[in-house]
Amino acid sequence: MPEVHAARRTRLRSHCEAAGSDAVLVSRPANISYLTGCAPPRSVLLLGAGEDLLVRPGDPAQDPAGAPQPDDLRVHSLGGPDGDAAVAATGLAAVGAATALAVEEHHLTVARHRALASVAPRLALTDLARAVEQQRLVKDDEEIACLRIAAEIGDQALGELLESILVGRTERHLALELERRLVDHGAEGPAFPTAVGTGPHAGRAGHVPTDRRVEEGDFLTVCLGARYRGYRCEIGRTFVVGTAPDDWQIELYDLVFAAQRAGREALTPGVEYRDVDRAARQVLTAAGHGDGVGPFTGHGVGLEIDEDPRLAPASMGKLDARVPVTVEPGVHLPGRGGVRIDDTLVVRSQADGGPELLTITTKELLAL
Amino acid sequence: MPEVHAARRTRLRSHCEAAGSDAVLVSRPANISYLTGCAPPRSVLLLGAGEDLLVRPGDPAQDPAGAPQPDDLRVHSLGGPDGDAAVAATGLAAVGAATALAVEEHHLTVARHRALASVAPRLALTDLARAVEQQRLVKDDEEIACLRIAAEIGDQALGELLESILVGRTERHLALELERRLVDHGAEGPAFPTAVGTGPHAGRAGHVPTDRRVEEGDFLTVCLGARYRGYRCEIGRTFVVGTAPDDWQIELYDLVFAAQRAGREALTPGVEYRDVDRAARQVLTAAGHGDGVGPFTGHGVGLEIDEDPRLAPASMGKLDARVPVTVEPGVHLPGRGGVRIDDTLVVRSQADGGPELLTITTKELLAL
Repeated sequence: MPEVHAARRTRLRSHCEAAGSDAVLVSRPANISYLTGCAPPRSVLLLGAGEDLLVRPGDPAQDPAGAPQPDDLRVHSLGGPDGDAAVAATGLAAVGAATALAVEEHHLTVARHRALASVAPRLALTDLARAVEQQRLVKDDEEIACLRIAAEIGDQALGELLESILVGRTERHLALELERRLVDHGAEGPAFPTAVGTGPHAGRAGHVPTDRRVEEGDFLTVCLGARYRGYRCEIGRTFVVGTAPDDWQIELYDLVFAAQRAGREALTPGVEYRDVDRAARQVLTAAGHGDGVGPFTGHGVGLEIDEDPRLAPASMGKLDARVPVTVEPGVHLPGRGGVRIDDTLVVRSQADGGPELLTITTKELLAL
Repeated sequence: MPEVHAARRTRLRSHCEAAGSDAVLVSRPANISYLTGCAPPRSVLLLGAGEDLLVRPGDPAQDPAGAPQPDDLRVHSLGGPDGDAAVAATGLAAVGAATALAVEEHHLTVARHRALASVAPRLALTDLARAVEQQRLVKDDEEIACLRIAAEIGDQALGELLESILVGRTERHLALELERRLVDHGAEGPAFPTAVGTGPHAGRAGHVPTDRRVEEGDFLTVCLGARYRGYRCEIGRTFVVGTAPDDWQIELYDLVFAAQRAGREALTPGVEYRDVDRAARQVLTAAGHGDGVGPFTGHGVGLEIDEDPRLAPASMGKLDARVPVTVEPGVHLPGRGGVRIDDTLVVRSQADGGPELLTITTKELLAL
């Protein structure tokens, strides 16, 4: 879909021209990917007055089989040294008569910025800021289709795990098995490191799997996701291992479930990011678990697993239709464990059926 | 080993003071790890005139079980927003009366640099450059012991793979299985994405595994490594699948083997980086394969898989004793495949026994 990428670049160029910059240098890999369909390591994208140019180290002919190549813009390969000055010199030759170059100050290093400034002392360097990230917020049909497939792969891998024997296996092995299953079902790889937490580790966000083995009576929290055509999705569930959950487990689960539902139900075009967070957070705070909630209760997903927007108390901005986000409140009680429930949904208006749930694995409290 | 980290910080502080900076801000994660024993995501380390401070977002009590914590310096956790200004303000309160702050311009973003400058307009920001990377070049006994174990784990995982049936399995599955075996044998995880290339993909550096299945008569190149206590090691081997290799396969293998041996034999304290590269490269160039060799034939390993030094034609500098490097020449013939052989060795003087080979899997051409 080369015309999609060209259209995205045209939109970015218009944005920058309106802000007074006649050339743009994009360095953040996910942003390059969004604008060209590929992002070779350490490459930069230049949108000049005349033409667009991808400057990359290494020879495209030596790329792995199937590595995406941009088919609608010129690629300049740096055969020799791939230092800052070389990139700057090559790039600036392409921007030609530009007078102001917008760069991603939140990504570009000081060293590279200096190299650009020294190669072209008369070119004004301005800040592109998060213009590409803003453009990436609202997804098109193709992007949402990729996220749907990624979600389906996550559901499949998780479903298979639930049918296997869990007691006695380590967090680390369960995580590796889930990642293998993601690939079996067509993922390019995991969208992020799979988190498996049992017993006292359950309910933690981003828990790094350990050698702790699953025991009867444990809470077990699993958070995983697939990457499909570059798009990343996320699902998290908490289970009880053994036949009957304890009362405290049922109570905590119901609470987190209620919080997560409140967050999901708050997703509608025009709502403030922080109001979605508050909807989920206040359920937990009212029950005395405010301290254990963490700094955010959801975030955008797409080419990166943790994109804009952030659903957090101080986040500024409003949700649009077609923005995919996670809703993932959780509570962790030190020493005891906890619960996290995490879905990926696409914001849609009520007329359009309301939020579209991509991750459909049941949220009943299953005893495995 | 907290005193090790404190000693490393003292050495860095002396280096900076000699260069005129009385405070240092380290932002590159591997560098923070080297200087403190841990590197929470998005943290920065400040070495002030008075004290050292690790500024990190999030609560250490919520860290994964077993996550390393620095036990010999103060940690300031940012509970609220973890933006550039907050880090800068907190950090600068710690550096107190400093007049010049050295920062890692090759890592720090322009936005963060600006935030620092605006919070303390009278503080001169200087460039630390790659001072910590330079300090990391020569490894101590503890670091080399970790690399030895990482290498042993890689050898074990590779050895087991060689005993299994390969024909009909995909590159992707072989790579996943190798990564599982690394963890089985005690690795924290793979040191880098495992490369498995068969048939026409064999011999490529950093090949991303595909769904191609192993066939009789293929070259099969595997490159993998374990991460152990943060340290990363690398081994690469090429095999023939089936009973008898073709003549062209034997010839190409012998050539790459001779190049790799020449590189290994060139490793001695005081030798120029580029002379090691040339020793390996000229064997391949003399045989008419100069174009397919790639930009470097080896690199340092340690807390990162691709550290200084780089063994390449234009690299400036000399090897010291106790520097671990890879020697990994390869040739890839488009459409036909190729050979790579990759070892990790520690440079040692002849009096000390010569280069220490960490990755001991055989380099005979095995037919699997």
